[in-house]
Amino acid sequence: MRKVANGSLSVEEAEQRLKILAIEEVAGILKLDVGREVRKSVPEIILSEYKSADQLELAIKGLLEARGRAIASRLREDQFEVVKKFERDYDVVLSASRRVAVIKRRDYRAPKHGGRVGIVAAGTADLPIADEVRLLVEELGCEAVSIHDVGVAGLHRTLEAAKRLLEVDVDVVVAIAGMEGALPSVMASVLDVPVIGLPTSLGYGLGGSGIAALLSMLQSCSPGLVVVNIDKAMRAAVAAALIANRVARFRGSSGK
Amino acid sequence: MRKVANGSLSVEEAEQRLKILAIEEVAGILKLDVGREVRKSVPEIILSEYKSADQLELAIKGLLEARGRAIASRLREDQFEVVKKFERDYDVVLSASRRVAVIKRRDYRAPKHGGRVGIVAAGTADLPIADEVRLLVEELGCEAVSIHDVGVAGLHRTLEAAKRLLEVDVDVVVAIAGMEGALPSVMASVLDVPVIGLPTSLGYGLGGSGIAALLSMLQSCSPGLVVVNIDKAMRAAVAAALIANRVARFRGSSGK
Amino acid sequence: MRKVANGSLSVEEAEQRLKILAIEEVAGILKLDVGREVRKSVPEIILSEYKSADQLELAIKGLLEARGRAIASRLREDQFEVVKKFERDYDVVLSASRRVAVIKRRDYRAPKHGGRVGIVAAGTADLPIADEVRLLVEELGCEAVSIHDVGVAGLHRTLEAAKRLLEVDVDVVVAIAGMEGALPSVMASVLDVPVIGLPTSLGYGLGGSGIAALLSMLQSCSPGLVVVNIDKAMRAAVAAALIANRVARFRGSSGK
Amino acid sequence: MRKVANGSLSVEEAEQRLKILAIEEVAGILKLDVGREVRKSVPEIILSEYKSADQLELAIKGLLEARGRAIASRLREDQFEVVKKFERDYDVVLSASRRVAVIKRRDYRAPKHGGRVGIVAAGTADLPIADEVRLLVEELGCEAVSIHDVGVAGLHRTLEAAKRLLEVDVDVVVAIAGMEGALPSVMASVLDVPVIGLPTSLGYGLGGSGIAALLSMLQSCSPGLVVVNIDKAMRAAVAAALIANRVARFRGSSGK
Amino acid sequence: MRKVANGSLSVEEAEQRLKILAIEEVAGILKLDVGREVRKSVPEIILSEYKSADQLELAIKGLLEARGRAIASRLREDQFEVVKKFERDYDVVLSASRRVAVIKRRDYRAPKHGGRVGIVAAGTADLPIADEVRLLVEELGCEAVSIHDVGVAGLHRTLEAAKRLLEVDVDVVVAIAGMEGALPSVMASVLDVPVIGLPTSLGYGLGGSGIAALLSMLQSCSPGLVVVNIDKAMRAAVAAALIANRVARFRGSSGK
Amino acid sequence: MRKVANGSLSVEEAEQRLKILAIEEVAGILKLDVGREVRKSVPEIILSEYKSADQLELAIKGLLEARGRAIASRLREDQFEVVKKFERDYDVVLSASRRVAVIKRRDYRAPKHGGRVGIVAAGTADLPIADEVRLLVEELGCEAVSIHDVGVAGLHRTLEAAKRLLEVDVDVVVAIAGMEGALPSVMASVLDVPVIGLPTSLGYGLGGSGIAALLSMLQSCSPGLVVVNIDKAMRAAVAAALIANRVARFRGSSGK
Amino acid sequence: MRKVANGSLSVEEAEQRLKILAIEEVAGILKLDVGREVRKSVPEIILSEYKSADQLELAIKGLLEARGRAIASRLREDQFEVVKKFERDYDVVLSASRRVAVIKRRDYRAPKHGGRVGIVAAGTADLPIADEVRLLVEELGCEAVSIHDVGVAGLHRTLEAAKRLLEVDVDVVVAIAGMEGALPSVMASVLDVPVIGLPTSLGYGLGGSGIAALLSMLQSCSPGLVVVNIDKAMRAAVAAALIANRVARFRGSSGK
Amino acid sequence: MRKVANGSLSVEEAEQRLKILAIEEVAGILKLDVGREVRKSVPEIILSEYKSADQLELAIKGLLEARGRAIASRLREDQFEVVKKFERDYDVVLSASRRVAVIKRRDYRAPKHGGRVGIVAAGTADLPIADEVRLLVEELGCEAVSIHDVGVAGLHRTLEAAKRLLEVDVDVVVAIAGMEGALPSVMASVLDVPVIGLPTSLGYGLGGSGIAALLSMLQSCSPGLVVVNIDKAMRAAVAAALIANRVARFRGSSGK
Repeated sequence: MRKVANGSLSVEEAEQRLKILAIEEVAGILKLDVGREVRKSVPEIILSEYKSADQLELAIKGLLEARGRAIASRLREDQFEVVKKFERDYDVVLSASRRVAVIKRRDYRAPKHGGRVGIVAAGTADLPIADEVRLLVEELGCEAVSIHDVGVAGLHRTLEAAKRLLEVDVDVVVAIAGMEGALPSVMASVLDVPVIGLPTSLGYGLGGSGIAALLSMLQSCSPGLVVVNIDKAMRAAVAAALIANRVARFRGSSGK
Repeated sequence: MRKVANGSLSVEEAEQRLKILAIEEVAGILKLDVGREVRKSVPEIILSEYKSADQLELAIKGLLEARGRAIASRLREDQFEVVKKFERDYDVVLSASRRVAVIKRRDYRAPKHGGRVGIVAAGTADLPIADEVRLLVEELGCEAVSIHDVGVAGLHRTLEAAKRLLEVDVDVVVAIAGMEGALPSVMASVLDVPVIGLPTSLGYGLGGSGIAALLSMLQSCSPGLVVVNIDKAMRAAVAAALIANRVARFRGSSGK
Repeated sequence: MRKVANGSLSVEEAEQRLKILAIEEVAGILKLDVGREVRKSVPEIILSEYKSADQLELAIKGLLEARGRAIASRLREDQFEVVKKFERDYDVVLSASRRVAVIKRRDYRAPKHGGRVGIVAAGTADLPIADEVRLLVEELGCEAVSIHDVGVAGLHRTLEAAKRLLEVDVDVVVAIAGMEGALPSVMASVLDVPVIGLPTSLGYGLGGSGIAALLSMLQSCSPGLVVVNIDKAMRAAVAAALIANRVARFRGSSGK
Repeated sequence: MRKVANGSLSVEEAEQRLKILAIEEVAGILKLDVGREVRKSVPEIILSEYKSADQLELAIKGLLEARGRAIASRLREDQFEVVKKFERDYDVVLSASRRVAVIKRRDYRAPKHGGRVGIVAAGTADLPIADEVRLLVEELGCEAVSIHDVGVAGLHRTLEAAKRLLEVDVDVVVAIAGMEGALPSVMASVLDVPVIGLPTSLGYGLGGSGIAALLSMLQSCSPGLVVVNIDKAMRAAVAAALIANRVARFRGSSGK
Repeated sequence: MRKVANGSLSVEEAEQRLKILAIEEVAGILKLDVGREVRKSVPEIILSEYKSADQLELAIKGLLEARGRAIASRLREDQFEVVKKFERDYDVVLSASRRVAVIKRRDYRAPKHGGRVGIVAAGTADLPIADEVRLLVEELGCEAVSIHDVGVAGLHRTLEAAKRLLEVDVDVVVAIAGMEGALPSVMASVLDVPVIGLPTSLGYGLGGSGIAALLSMLQSCSPGLVVVNIDKAMRAAVAAALIANRVARFRGSSGK
Repeated sequence: MRKVANGSLSVEEAEQRLKILAIEEVAGILKLDVGREVRKSVPEIILSEYKSADQLELAIKGLLEARGRAIASRLREDQFEVVKKFERDYDVVLSASRRVAVIKRRDYRAPKHGGRVGIVAAGTADLPIADEVRLLVEELGCEAVSIHDVGVAGLHRTLEAAKRLLEVDVDVVVAIAGMEGALPSVMASVLDVPVIGLPTSLGYGLGGSGIAALLSMLQSCSPGLVVVNIDKAMRAAVAAALIANRVARFRGSSGK
Repeated sequence: MRKVANGSLSVEEAEQRLKILAIEEVAGILKLDVGREVRKSVPEIILSEYKSADQLELAIKGLLEARGRAIASRLREDQFEVVKKFERDYDVVLSASRRVAVIKRRDYRAPKHGGRVGIVAAGTADLPIADEVRLLVEELGCEAVSIHDVGVAGLHRTLEAAKRLLEVDVDVVVAIAGMEGALPSVMASVLDVPVIGLPTSLGYGLGGSGIAALLSMLQSCSPGLVVVNIDKAMRAAVAAALIANRVARFRGSSGK
Repeated sequence: MRKVANGSLSVEEAEQRLKILAIEEVAGILKLDVGREVRKSVPEIILSEYKSADQLELAIKGLLEARGRAIASRLREDQFEVVKKFERDYDVVLSASRRVAVIKRRDYRAPKHGGRVGIVAAGTADLPIADEVRLLVEELGCEAVSIHDVGVAGLHRTLEAAKRLLEVDVDVVVAIAGMEGALPSVMASVLDVPVIGLPTSLGYGLGGSGIAALLSMLQSCSPGLVVVNIDKAMRAAVAAALIANRVARFRGSSGK
């Protein structure tokens, strides 16, 4: 400032410096990585799909070193080799779809936070996504209760599934369906816990690829239904785990 | 042809005449109005919406003279006066929505073809459309069985409705729903008669105005579900009547 | 309840149990598989497209054991081998498109319910879908009358087809068209039986892949036209069979 | 340039000047208004819709002075007063829809170029647009042959219209339809002159407001069909007049 | 069954009866209204928008009698009078937008379940929706913490809001934003509780009316973000309350 | 009729027969193939894309026998072999894109109707489509004037092209462009003959694949511009030929 | 931390406090309002559209006190009264559209940063938006050069405008167009300064309301063209001013 | 003209000649290639994607001869060989994505105009596009400052990037992001230079492939943000270079 006064600093330079100063302090603070500390209950999950083989391998190694475990979602078929390489030195767990992989040090023990997540899938075609959700919520410290093939075309199976979820007293339900996507609506109309609708990219013709499923979930009249985008298993799993684990935090070891 | 030969007719004129001749004969035949004779079981229904008051009045008068009855659908609020004028000399029947009107000579007796049409509506907001369907199928000679407020948010009511339709042994069901439009899917999964899904222009946000309802009906996995466009009460009613009355034609007076 | 009173049951446990109790009874009842008894005239049809080879084979075997016949629709090219395996021990019938397969015990006799379904296709490109509809309605117990290449670009062929359908006195017509999809409209304007419009995924540019065809069927002014989604041969076939067989049930063996 | 050499002109100034020079010459030439001379057979038509009352009045006055005639299309209801003012001193001709107005000096005589334009409209709701096309092509020097209510729902009327157009031997046809928009397709499949499809903003539900009509015209298989946007009466009229008048230019007064 | 055996019952009648019997039992059970008992923590909320004045009044009266409180959402301007009538005999509470109304007996005491819901709104235009969410979650037994005008255009305010929500230790956050809808993404990236993104129908041009906001929430990379449809205050509020109250149920009176 | 009177014919049979009779006569007439005679100036063009190799070969053979020439458009890469087979016995002419093929008897002489069609293409990527249009209009008896690489990014080339088209005095112009599709607008604003806008499926991002090009042509303010769907070379060529040949019919051999 | 050690602080409390601490520091820093200092060359502009009259008045007053000037954009018709009130004590300047208002203390002097912004509008209907851009860039300290009615339908006027902009040597051009939106493409192909395309909500039919204009700008091949959303005058003006004023900052008072 | 008078020239010929004359002069002028001189600061860049291998090679050779450097963007995988051929005789520089190639004479020295362009990319998947922008702006004579992996999910990194850009005092920023595309909004809200939002085709489900990113950038409230279409690295680079180099032109060699 004085520099400005005595002329050794142009007004423009002064102005520029003030700007930098302000940002600098903010950035300095933020560098402490507020986010990471704050959100420690949700580990970083690698979105593999748009990464090269090298980038993916690097990311896995980095997480293994820092945390002892790496979770990779949306693996492309051709990235599978990258994951296989780790099998020699690490435990590698795959979802049925082989699109989600967990690589861990052999002595790694995943946390058990105690949340309970119900997972219901409408048809056999929804199974790969459902299994991804299961693997993810388990790695996030929850207990998963999976029930399959309970689409509304077989109403009694739908209701049996609802009964089972009530018995287990899950904290949240992830309801998975493609085509017309009616399952989450019916689940949310019967259960009194939040339901996360997860549309899958099934169906052809107008409204296909999960569009009709997503839109009908967004339009649903059933109370307590929230939605994630088509095929976003990871997104549904993380939200479910956040809900369930927060409940579990207060439920404690004494159970209900 | 000879004219061409002897030069008194240019090639182009000859060609032109041949074209006209061919069309002329076709048109001559068609003038017999094949269509009308063929389709007599479905009376003409006036689509009022895009007509001026004068055009509407003229159309009604024309049908009253020719048939003793005029049916007008999609009446605009401001066309209501046109219909009221006929009350002095004719019987005027209106749907609850006042968008469908039947004007008939006092001695007119609508045919009774004996078809049975079930009409189920998901919510109270679907009632106006449902009543339009009812009035139309009745005028088309069917018996209507209407059940309201049976959306899947109250599953037991949905199933009670299905039971009632089975008892009456309807020939076809018109299932009406807006928002996520799940009712027709559930009905078609439970009943063994054809179900006509009729989406209504309810709902806001993405997929609103009946879009999600229509798409989820188009994507439905339930067997036997066919669809008409959003709010097309008349279209659903005519298709239902065609189905039901054809069944009734063979069922005869002996009933089931 | 008494437990609540004497304190041995917490309020929360009581509440939870009541919920389960209610669902349990419903589920108990529903387990009788109301649906299957109710809808027995429509056999289950396997949607192959989203199944793995193993899942498909299992499904076929299951149906063969339970019913003596398995119908699979939307077969992917790579699933064809699964079907071929059954040829040694069973009769295997394929649609021209090889996307619909019927596998039956050699002594299986399909029911003859007596319904009559007209099938008209606009162009040669619509033939594969048309043949799928034919095979399916025949397996559903109907008599099929197929007429091809009758798009409105050749109006006289369109009308000849209409004439033939009237002579045979079909109970319902499946009208198949891609591109601008005008055939179902014209058919429905000429015939007095319900017409099911089945758009095919033909056409390129804006409105291509069957979109314009579907939309123009949804917008059609012709009475009695209902619609299924693009390429949904199975859906059209089942709806047609439900209509035709219900008529046939009352027509009896005496014919018209 | 020399200025650059002797330093009295900076390089940047020189560069800037060269740019201006080049554009200037082009602009200078173009100022001769190539366009107007070139396109004189099509008079300027005022698009009223987005103009204020003052802007519209000014535009009309300008054309009346320069040409003795002003044509205004897409008049808003509230702009009608502007047009009425001219009635005292000029001849004012309106389309039935009152959305197209022609204001001319009492002694103005529109050219007669001799083109023949057929105009067919599917339904009564298409009449206002059809009459706008008629008025415009007449003002553009053509003879108009208008035939209404010839939608494909009444096929014989459609063919009668085609016959009449062949008899008159029109040079081009404007085919107008809303809803599913099948009329232009059928016309183009029957006639051997170019057909301009003009979709109208009729119809509700998915594909409504003319969307399905436009898309099905774009997808049509009929040879010789071209399209303009929804409700664009003026655009269809000008294209039709350009075609017809060019034919007429060579047909001469001797007729065919 | 015996009737079938001894011939006094036709096969068709028998079949029909079996169908009815099965449905009847289900319906009988379901009539107990499983749903209501099961979901008692969420009271019925009237969707006023598509109801007539009479229907709305009836619905309010019904709920007042049965429960002592009626909640109505999406009130149209013209329905406001209906609500006002109740002011003489009941307490009437309105949201700032006057689109949500709570009518209660003067002695009615809303439950306090103890859930804590954070509500953040991006701009002043989002306030009406935000206040609807607040009123609803309070009536659903939660404590609401509302913070406004914290859009990402003012990042420091966004972070201050996050800090406040952490201090209060809310169980779930409803993040409200129109236009580009970035607030929920940023909130979910900073907080470790589930965030419900609620897009509002703000913004014009492509992606306006909340479309871009909804899509960007659906596409967001931030963990723990789920979504409801545009303007669906009620849906967001109920989901938030279900989550928060389930946490509170285990947190008990002892607080954290 | 008499049969009805004396009772040997039921009313239903009579009715059915009347229907058939009416259609039969129409169909009988139409069988003369009105269409073909009427439209002889436009030969049938095979849409190869959706045909099997066998269907295509059959279609080509049929046309070669009947007319001595077969034109096939939209050839798929894998259909090229079918066309090659004919090279031994016939002349085979291909467009640069190898998607349009003309197969003719060695002594076949295409008609020369004398129409003049201008063809302008915006970029090098539009060349394949442009050459298809050229080949087709030539086969349809027109003289083609093709000018390439005249997109509005090089305005002087655009105007030079316009000049050349005026010198040749073409009867109609096909203007081809992808991306933003501005060329047809500029051409139509400069020329006084009808311009057919042909959008190509170029461009990526929002509005890509020809969508923006098509929409901007549909929205264009330039008089005399009509449009065909994206990539529809055949449709544009046939319409252009119909226009040009009709002009030529009156222009006669004397030229202008 | 010590509290944790000695047990007086639970782990959960500790964790919670750490989170708050981190956010607190960040928020504390940010409170210095980095943004405002940093971006001082762009004053806050009130988006009036979604504000109530009270909110708007408050916002204006606030800015007047703090800065001596308030700029309000997107004024609704009914908000005009709010602005008028200020006329007694302040200078009020309005854009021609009356949708942008500048209210200033009588002694307020807007800064002159020296940037030069060219503004070109395609048609008379684009004038209101063009004038909003002009008023805004002037208030942002730029010199505006506005040229109207230079759509590509009159190419010579388009080029004359380009010439003028080169002569003035503007730093950036805002090119405004609705319908097919070709003006910005042509401008960007002729000028060597950045061009900001501003589509306006003109045009009807498919691609209307500015959609085709926006898409064709996004698809344009012309170098140097960037885009803002439909009707976003304020957004275009601010971007133009940022560009022009940065240039001016270095150009200094000495001009070029 | 005299010819007209003395009859040796028909009126039509005269008219035709006048048209040509006018265009001819314009074209003559334009042939000077106004555009090229005017826009010399932006070299031609080859859009490789839609070119054949031969066309591409020709284009590269042409530019190498004329300018000593050829820049090719949007190279397809299969076009890479074409570029490799030039390596023997020329310097070939590739972007990391291998989709942008610069081929130059070994003695070619790219201009240094002195503009400073900041490039920020949200995620690792955005790197290929970011590197294309870098290579292009460098070839256009700018200094590029690239910062990666600064998506808003890691807010402190976002702000650090902003700080760095302020320190370097860039003239313009290209902000690159897929998915929900929030980075450009945040950058524009923090910086006081124009920001060009460049959405990338990342993301799946509704709003995927860059749609949500583009829409949210178009809807953004942040001042100074303009947009280019999805994946349009070249378009963003050219606009950025035009802005930066214009600033640099006045900044001169003396720096700031």
